[in-house]
Amino acid sequence: MYATVMHGPGDVRYEHVEDPEIVKPTDAIIKLSATCICGSDLWPYRGLQPQAAPVHMGHEYCGIVVEVGSEVRTIRPGQFVVGSFCLSDNTCPHCRFGFQSSCQQREFMTGAQAPYARVPLADGSLVATTEIPDTGMIPDMLAASDVLGTGWYGAVAANVREGSTVVVVGDGAVGLMGVMAAHQLGAERIIAMSRHEGRAKLAREFGATDIVAARGEDGIQRIMELTDGIGAESVIEAVGTQQSMQQAMGVCRPGGSIGYVGVPHGVSFDGQQLFLWQQRMLGGPAPVRRFLPDLMERVLQSRIQPGKVFDLILPIAEIAEGYRTMDERRAIKTMLQLAE
Amino acid sequence: MYATVMHGPGDVRYEHVEDPEIVKPTDAIIKLSATCICGSDLWPYRGLQPQAAPVHMGHEYCGIVVEVGSEVRTIRPGQFVVGSFCLSDNTCPHCRFGFQSSCQQREFMTGAQAPYARVPLADGSLVATTEIPDTGMIPDMLAASDVLGTGWYGAVAANVREGSTVVVVGDGAVGLMGVMAAHQLGAERIIAMSRHEGRAKLAREFGATDIVAARGEDGIQRIMELTDGIGAESVIEAVGTQQSMQQAMGVCRPGGSIGYVGVPHGVSFDGQQLFLWQQRMLGGPAPVRRFLPDLMERVLQSRIQPGKVFDLILPIAEIAEGYRTMDERRAIKTMLQLAE
Repeated sequence: MYATVMHGPGDVRYEHVEDPEIVKPTDAIIKLSATCICGSDLWPYRGLQPQAAPVHMGHEYCGIVVEVGSEVRTIRPGQFVVGSFCLSDNTCPHCRFGFQSSCQQREFMTGAQAPYARVPLADGSLVATTEIPDTGMIPDMLAASDVLGTGWYGAVAANVREGSTVVVVGDGAVGLMGVMAAHQLGAERIIAMSRHEGRAKLAREFGATDIVAARGEDGIQRIMELTDGIGAESVIEAVGTQQSMQQAMGVCRPGGSIGYVGVPHGVSFDGQQLFLWQQRMLGGPAPVRRFLPDLMERVLQSRIQPGKVFDLILPIAEIAEGYRTMDERRAIKTMLQLAE
Repeated sequence: MYATVMHGPGDVRYEHVEDPEIVKPTDAIIKLSATCICGSDLWPYRGLQPQAAPVHMGHEYCGIVVEVGSEVRTIRPGQFVVGSFCLSDNTCPHCRFGFQSSCQQREFMTGAQAPYARVPLADGSLVATTEIPDTGMIPDMLAASDVLGTGWYGAVAANVREGSTVVVVGDGAVGLMGVMAAHQLGAERIIAMSRHEGRAKLAREFGATDIVAARGEDGIQRIMELTDGIGAESVIEAVGTQQSMQQAMGVCRPGGSIGYVGVPHGVSFDGQQLFLWQQRMLGGPAPVRRFLPDLMERVLQSRIQPGKVFDLILPIAEIAEGYRTMDERRAIKTMLQLAE
């Protein structure tokens, strides 16, 4: 088949590769219904994350099971499934504690920017629907695989609850999903930081009550004004730079919580500052599997339409252009259509 | 009167100073029932925290109110009171959020290693008993002012609850109080890290179920063995060095919580490690005021005897020796008796 391979920074090719096969008896092979490009794919694309050899890209996926290994018990060919970018057995102590992204058998999904993909730990990682969903719901289901689940985890890690005041730092796809999650979890006030009209519009559609375009000290001051000088009790950090983290810390009230879901690159925290500011921090690769059944149910009930975050759809053969659109911020998130 | 003044590293004197007076109408003057030396007093004593001028030492206190300012409403002369080392109005948004140690009017108590002391923000900071407690309870009440309240906050910040597995890093007074707090909050297993027989004995008395004498990588490995390779869901860090923080992080399970209450000195966190390890962090100067009524009630009901942490009692005139005993780790915590 043809699939997406990154050969180096800026060099993404849709080229011939071996078909995926069952390698372990706990694997499944799925035929993807759609796939997409993640903000985290841009780190190696921009050369900011070293990569030694060509890599089969793609870790967001949903589709139809076509084959399962001999030890797979709960997943059957023909089912529509969504899985997390973190593969987990869902039975180990860390999984049972709700942190499937630290599963003792954890693997990271790869090779999903392709028509077919191998999913290890199929029983633990995949969640099946009872019926095949409408085609119109595919983007929503695909979003649940990573970007929605990650935004959701950010909101949960930031302790968002009924009536909360929430600040979302980052207007990328994960930040926007954080807005949606905060709204669904009952936040009363959701301040999204964005200076891009299109993204701010989507943030409002997803539940943002205020948009702050200012950044840095100005941005912090603006949010302090909006919160009567107190700051927010919940902050979702969805970028992963030192600057965005300082932004998050600058607007979080003492005793408030910061959920940070942007993979940190070159970020460090000063222990004494963290101590004196008394902010509760929780981050990490999202345990999407914990939230997946709930998120899929919300999609099926049309309570949320996270697929709106895909503002560009291209045929998968144009994946290289897809990377460029996201790299140049011409698209928030690009979905790839697969040929029938 | 005579009081305790630190003139520089290693130089603590009990010398003549001005009597404390009401400075603001919200002040109270108390006659101390007893006072003590804090582990944090050792940072400047050891020259590890620069100090420009002589400082009136002491921030842990309980005693009888002898005078109040014109705006003090709830505290009256003759009452027995305990206050927090963080002075707070207990009415501002941060106080109402339970973080009195970040009060908008916050001050830090000082001058309490003395027969009399001025307590700013008396209404907000002081908690009075209905009757004067027995003399035998004075050490317990004094402990509530800081060391017990700080250990308690560490346990709450570490999310200790019924059935928890808890590791306590640090066998100083705060660590030992963290053990007591974890026990009171219903922890099932409390692993105290200590290599000092006397401290380990006290830890067991306070509720520790296991003692780990090993440190560093060995200590981490030992605790991983004790927890079936999983780690603890709650870790109380009560030292404040990079090493102790690494110890805490090394034994905390993914999704677990670290409550760090040792004032960090030269500590920094790597953002990516913190992210990948998925540990919830909350620290800070303890909002003791939040816990004080409950802690004092537990003392009055003889449910806890935190005063046992004072393993040396000296007359206040020997305060310089008191500092030496703690600096040289000859005492866990030294209480100073005041002349009648």
